[in-house]
Amino acid sequence: MIIVMSRNATKQEIDNVEKKLQGLGFKTHPIIGEVKTVIGAIGDKRILNSVNITTMPGVESLVPIMKPFKLAGRELKQTPSIIDIDGISIGGKELTIIAGPCAIESEDSFIETALKVRDAGAQILRGGAFKPRSSPYSFQGLHEEGLKIMAKAREITGMKIVTEVVDTRDVELVASYADIIQIGARNMQNFRLLHEVGLTSKPILLKRGLAATIEEWLMAAEYIMDAGNENIILCERGIRTYETSTRNTVDISAIPVVKELSHLPIIVDPSHAAGNWKYVGALSKAAIAAGADGLIIEVHIDPPNALSDGPQSLRPAKFNQLMGEFRTVAAAVGRTIVENEGDHISG
Amino acid sequence: MIIVMSRNATKQEIDNVEKKLQGLGFKTHPIIGEVKTVIGAIGDKRILNSVNITTMPGVESLVPIMKPFKLAGRELKQTPSIIDIDGISIGGKELTIIAGPCAIESEDSFIETALKVRDAGAQILRGGAFKPRSSPYSFQGLHEEGLKIMAKAREITGMKIVTEVVDTRDVELVASYADIIQIGARNMQNFRLLHEVGLTSKPILLKRGLAATIEEWLMAAEYIMDAGNENIILCERGIRTYETSTRNTVDISAIPVVKELSHLPIIVDPSHAAGNWKYVGALSKAAIAAGADGLIIEVHIDPPNALSDGPQSLRPAKFNQLMGEFRTVAAAVGRTIVENEGDHISG
Amino acid sequence: MIIVMSRNATKQEIDNVEKKLQGLGFKTHPIIGEVKTVIGAIGDKRILNSVNITTMPGVESLVPIMKPFKLAGRELKQTPSIIDIDGISIGGKELTIIAGPCAIESEDSFIETALKVRDAGAQILRGGAFKPRSSPYSFQGLHEEGLKIMAKAREITGMKIVTEVVDTRDVELVASYADIIQIGARNMQNFRLLHEVGLTSKPILLKRGLAATIEEWLMAAEYIMDAGNENIILCERGIRTYETSTRNTVDISAIPVVKELSHLPIIVDPSHAAGNWKYVGALSKAAIAAGADGLIIEVHIDPPNALSDGPQSLRPAKFNQLMGEFRTVAAAVGRTIVENEGDHISG
Amino acid sequence: MIIVMSRNATKQEIDNVEKKLQGLGFKTHPIIGEVKTVIGAIGDKRILNSVNITTMPGVESLVPIMKPFKLAGRELKQTPSIIDIDGISIGGKELTIIAGPCAIESEDSFIETALKVRDAGAQILRGGAFKPRSSPYSFQGLHEEGLKIMAKAREITGMKIVTEVVDTRDVELVASYADIIQIGARNMQNFRLLHEVGLTSKPILLKRGLAATIEEWLMAAEYIMDAGNENIILCERGIRTYETSTRNTVDISAIPVVKELSHLPIIVDPSHAAGNWKYVGALSKAAIAAGADGLIIEVHIDPPNALSDGPQSLRPAKFNQLMGEFRTVAAAVGRTIVENEGDHISG
Repeated sequence: MIIVMSRNATKQEIDNVEKKLQGLGFKTHPIIGEVKTVIGAIGDKRILNSVNITTMPGVESLVPIMKPFKLAGRELKQTPSIIDIDGISIGGKELTIIAGPCAIESEDSFIETALKVRDAGAQILRGGAFKPRSSPYSFQGLHEEGLKIMAKAREITGMKIVTEVVDTRDVELVASYADIIQIGARNMQNFRLLHEVGLTSKPILLKRGLAATIEEWLMAAEYIMDAGNENIILCERGIRTYETSTRNTVDISAIPVVKELSHLPIIVDPSHAAGNWKYVGALSKAAIAAGADGLIIEVHIDPPNALSDGPQSLRPAKFNQLMGEFRTVAAAVGRTIVENEGDHISG
Repeated sequence: MIIVMSRNATKQEIDNVEKKLQGLGFKTHPIIGEVKTVIGAIGDKRILNSVNITTMPGVESLVPIMKPFKLAGRELKQTPSIIDIDGISIGGKELTIIAGPCAIESEDSFIETALKVRDAGAQILRGGAFKPRSSPYSFQGLHEEGLKIMAKAREITGMKIVTEVVDTRDVELVASYADIIQIGARNMQNFRLLHEVGLTSKPILLKRGLAATIEEWLMAAEYIMDAGNENIILCERGIRTYETSTRNTVDISAIPVVKELSHLPIIVDPSHAAGNWKYVGALSKAAIAAGADGLIIEVHIDPPNALSDGPQSLRPAKFNQLMGEFRTVAAAVGRTIVENEGDHISG
Repeated sequence: MIIVMSRNATKQEIDNVEKKLQGLGFKTHPIIGEVKTVIGAIGDKRILNSVNITTMPGVESLVPIMKPFKLAGRELKQTPSIIDIDGISIGGKELTIIAGPCAIESEDSFIETALKVRDAGAQILRGGAFKPRSSPYSFQGLHEEGLKIMAKAREITGMKIVTEVVDTRDVELVASYADIIQIGARNMQNFRLLHEVGLTSKPILLKRGLAATIEEWLMAAEYIMDAGNENIILCERGIRTYETSTRNTVDISAIPVVKELSHLPIIVDPSHAAGNWKYVGALSKAAIAAGADGLIIEVHIDPPNALSDGPQSLRPAKFNQLMGEFRTVAAAVGRTIVENEGDHISG
Repeated sequence: MIIVMSRNATKQEIDNVEKKLQGLGFKTHPIIGEVKTVIGAIGDKRILNSVNITTMPGVESLVPIMKPFKLAGRELKQTPSIIDIDGISIGGKELTIIAGPCAIESEDSFIETALKVRDAGAQILRGGAFKPRSSPYSFQGLHEEGLKIMAKAREITGMKIVTEVVDTRDVELVASYADIIQIGARNMQNFRLLHEVGLTSKPILLKRGLAATIEEWLMAAEYIMDAGNENIILCERGIRTYETSTRNTVDISAIPVVKELSHLPIIVDPSHAAGNWKYVGALSKAAIAAGADGLIIEVHIDPPNALSDGPQSLRPAKFNQLMGEFRTVAAAVGRTIVENEGDHISG
């Protein structure tokens, strides 16, 4: 950590900062420049969580040298983590494709969708039972009824299921049904919820917040890991920018940046990023080519009648066609996607 | 609502959209332009929450004409709402000044701060018992112990108290102590929490999310109001932009925009917006001049040793001095701030 | 175009707006809703450039239905444009790879770089003679001396050359040397410069502004086309967002969006987008997979001693290796890149 | 300057960086931490403009300690600069109000507007003769004809005039008419234009770029000062964010930040920031209260028929009324605005 003293800092102020740091157990190394003095401080930055060096007289700013995350970072664990979902691996050579509707609307439509995305090669089924909606007048999900439908779909299709939890009070319930628990973008800094899912043994799909930096996102993972759960899959889903031609701007650079900073696997959600099914194919291929470990894609058998996010949902036949294209791109970057079992898919 | 058909839409596609809308109870008015056709649809837009017109073949986009919020908007209620906190009004001619430390750290320091901000003219005391912190290794608050200290401070000082709730499971507990319940920026779209505080009878201080549009913010208020609680105070606290010289960028325009769209009162938090106590005076005056109904300011008796947000905290003596300046600016725009009772304040 | 009248608009105000529009040659179609009236207006929106309907009493807002660009849009020209650079096509099946140093520093180093990127498969050579630098104390380029070096490199290597112009006074000079004239991000809305290059016969590489919407970018192309030059290559180079782990955030979604809205080819500059050579490979592959028509990449024979943008420059050997990987990804999406002529490249 | 070496940097790599720095004339101070080594380097950072330390093996990042601007900063000149416009001071106790239409449209309407804004207390007249418009089909200004009208208005009203230059070729012409030359937001990083106006003796009104950081803005001022012209007035005019309820988001915090970093005066343009005349009053008062040295406001005698920016223009009577309110707010923060000479204004 480097403390930058202001141009007008007095000798006394510099001494005070040094003494303060030394009292906290830091070794200090002042460097006296022509205009400003900086103080290098060696020690555990976390000690500083209870002291505000920057408010001491004469201090201009504080420059952290170490990253704030430890468990999620590459420093303690240099090899990539591979998350095991009961036999399905996320983070290895094989890409993981997660697909399904935004919300679970009925048993019939959900199971029909599940069969189709499975036959196209998806291994994990997505579906929302608890939906965070920006309007209180929008469909909020079927709640436990939805979880039961998911469990039934798992039984029928053999797929794993991922679903979102939005309330600490529901974590136990959701964990009792889901194979992977999703933390949505809006809850990325709902720290109590992060802690609570960190106490479960289920893998966590952690979406990036709408305006979260990569560092904040890894700190959210750190919360879950600090609670004891190290099985985290990061999910880039677009960030908020000034551009309005897509709902969000997918930050494709986040893939190589996360790979450099963290050992956790990262997948991409092109559906929420674009907000428009027409762009899902291009963004998915970009994600694969940039090194993502998987995709989570919205597929609906009847988008015009979807209760949520219809505009960004693919029809099953389109999804099936794209899966073929994804396999080719995956192969070009040394990755694989499991084979299509159903060329008979229509939709 | 206006449905814009694409340039290549067929007659059949246009007819299908009209029929669909009519089936939902809308009256339709097609306008055939030289290049594109648009369809005006009259009826309750909320019906559309379960239909995705934009995914129908030939549809290019949908332009809403009505605002999505109703209870929070000016359309049903044109006169400004004045929120009553047991005798203190927020939203009237008198500005409401809320002050106190970021986190409650100990009984002694909290009560000392409370007395000083009260004597400077603050009517409501802020303090965090449940702190959302971006690092799991940072101080997370004293929890119920903190709430008890707040209650004691209220007893001693006669001030009202506002504190944040971050978990649906704590709403009942927090409501049993607080005079105003705060929803923090990170939880602005924690819809279950919004609903839960909407079930209480306590006024809600609703901070704007870090990257929330004004429309999303008013929709968050709508959630609380839809649950039955209409006593909402909006709080602008800075939005995330590319500029890094301040922690966030205070959106001062939000004040006149909210005043135009909504009847709810709006206050400003210059401390979190700036992240630097040096800018708190200028931003506070700007907020008052722009028409804000109050301020919420961080004050700490010993910022260098604050357990949270020290860099942005004012010392009591500085706060007292600024309060005098705020009174002058308030008077210039026809508002008042209660008188200082303590020119003896040092800090 | 749709004019939305405010909730309180009077009959008289609605009539006035209709009359005004009719006087301008529009046909009007009022739709009287339960709360608001909207007026559909059919006619040439450009007429409105000299009238401000939105300032008329009772008007709430104006919703354009047609895109503001015409020459750059898909409406007048539906097939993709292929730009011919003296035998090299941009926008066809074959991807165009442009490479070279940020700035031209000396004849020897530039020609050495040129030979290496050519042997790796680049067809066009980049290099800056007029450099826009954020500090007046940074190297500003060799000016005409640099252009002469470029011309010599072209002669020796047989490559085409692209270089930036930053001043209307230099357009003629730059056009006399360059095969493609570049408009940099900072000048995307330097409308006089756009007009001036629009008067030349040279193809224009038009970079997206740092905070330009896609619509503004296409309007910048419209300026050039309106002046008579239709040979435009769009270049996505990252937009400014709140994220700081990369210098800019490459907007990969811009590729499919531009392909939908415009007939112009689009290439990507991963070097400026990332600001870090380590991410150039991943972003380049993402761009190819998403459908970009080419790449422009910074390559320097000695990045630590580059006079500009060293941190984002690849060494020739790394560039050569990546070119092989790009060919594989290109093939996976049905595109090609010309063959490597030099496996002997080291660097 | 601090060089942060990566966690895996070898002793050799650290030595190489030190030697490189020493060779450039820096004194080096390595600090060996538990995980990483950092190297403090004392010397002139500008030397580094021609070396890229960050690309040397083992280097993770470089942390500048000194600000990049010198002439525009507080370090060489600690007292605020007061810019003299032939007897009118900008930056002193008296606020400077600049007003007028966006574009000069005709002699009659311009002079009528000039007389009205003068009588309301404006000292400087604004008007565009060269207009940067996002569409080539919009009105581009009257060019020299417009400048002549401005000069005539100056003669009649006794006001000073400010107008924008958008092309290096026009600098001499514009300088021959204007009392203050404006550099618009889109040209803030048109470095050749900055240099060119820096060669004139006229004060420069330098608008902040749409997505410029405060540091970049001060570097733009540095360009002008480096060319020899130190008479710069900074103008905050709103930055681009994700919020769409105003055209831009006025960064009110920029006022105290600029005051801390620079000695140059700063004014605010609420008209372009808001894009809506209804918010101009609130934003203007906020700017004054936050410490701005003046305002530049669009006023038009007939906004619905303005050829440019009508929606954000005030009518003269409204401007006159607001001027009275501004005087009261100015007085509340110890500033003054010259007296209104015309309570007879209607408009």
